[in-house]
Amino acid sequence: MTIDYLERATELLAKMPGVGRKSAQRMAFRIIALPSEYALELAEAIRALKEELKVCEQCFNFSASTLCGICSDAKRDPRLICVVEDASSIKNIERSGRFRGLYHVLQGVLSPMHGVGPDDLRCRELLLRVASAPIDEVIFALNPTLEGEATSAYLGELLKGSSCTLSRIATGIPVGGSLDYCDEITMASAIDHRRNF
Amino acid sequence: MTIDYLERATELLAKMPGVGRKSAQRMAFRIIALPSEYALELAEAIRALKEELKVCEQCFNFSASTLCGICSDAKRDPRLICVVEDASSIKNIERSGRFRGLYHVLQGVLSPMHGVGPDDLRCRELLLRVASAPIDEVIFALNPTLEGEATSAYLGELLKGSSCTLSRIATGIPVGGSLDYCDEITMASAIDHRRNF
Repeated sequence: MTIDYLERATELLAKMPGVGRKSAQRMAFRIIALPSEYALELAEAIRALKEELKVCEQCFNFSASTLCGICSDAKRDPRLICVVEDASSIKNIERSGRFRGLYHVLQGVLSPMHGVGPDDLRCRELLLRVASAPIDEVIFALNPTLEGEATSAYLGELLKGSSCTLSRIATGIPVGGSLDYCDEITMASAIDHRRNF
Repeated sequence: MTIDYLERATELLAKMPGVGRKSAQRMAFRIIALPSEYALELAEAIRALKEELKVCEQCFNFSASTLCGICSDAKRDPRLICVVEDASSIKNIERSGRFRGLYHVLQGVLSPMHGVGPDDLRCRELLLRVASAPIDEVIFALNPTLEGEATSAYLGELLKGSSCTLSRIATGIPVGGSLDYCDEITMASAIDHRRNF
């Protein structure tokens, strides 16, 4: 019996987000068409993602060592903490180049519907970080969904007693976007939080 | 120094067709979120695509052994040969369930612009197959592009002397498609090759 290598690779690739059977097949053919080094490197990178990647002890970002690259970077301001849902948000914020502090990955949001409570997230660790070091500001950068909002509100309540400033990233019309395609809740938020020139 | 596993996987995944940086990053995070077995299986499947996959000696389809699954299937009609550009076309034709003969993968099309001549393709092997075994029909199923058409015409000319029927798959309006979105060349072909009820 021979294994259908193409079929197996296609099936596995089709499990990726946004990848259907047709795209998965095109990917498999591209892998065959590209030089061997690419396939071997990709295979190794995928294995390493799961086997080598650890979680930072301080901020719970993905990391190759005990402390992640951001937490161990002396040039970052340790008095600023940006709270995010997951590590993918960090990548997006870093690309903006506007934040020079440290992060705190909650590893999710509160969701009573899905049985996710404060103990399932890194809430206690955040309170501990704020209590044990001088922190100037905690910035909430959770997704502006119902659950993200509830989680920010919950943590904001717990951190109220501390001396640090609490803030959240702005919601509004995306830069370069069009008012024509803006939903009414975003529009309402953009008007409510209008800024003076 | 620590390797940025995420960055490396993202970069490699972004080389896949139709996958940009953002999708590649989402894929990397999905790999981390899924169980370890998935990542290991995918890594192995990608490696095998390049290292284990061979080419069928008869039809040049991808194969795990000397003869591919189709060529070694006794239930297929060896007197019918369908000529295709590459192995991905075979997958699409097989899914239609309408062809029960064997294939012949040219591994490309004639393209003087890109320096691809008959000797770079499996043209000689096709002529040899037709000459050495009783073949009833050769069906051309190349992509209906300028280069695909030229290749079909070239091979048709060479096979004219043989006793087998030469045919080509139909061009026309895609089933379920709309005339509104049909280009004028396809429309012209659909009218020229109209069928009687």
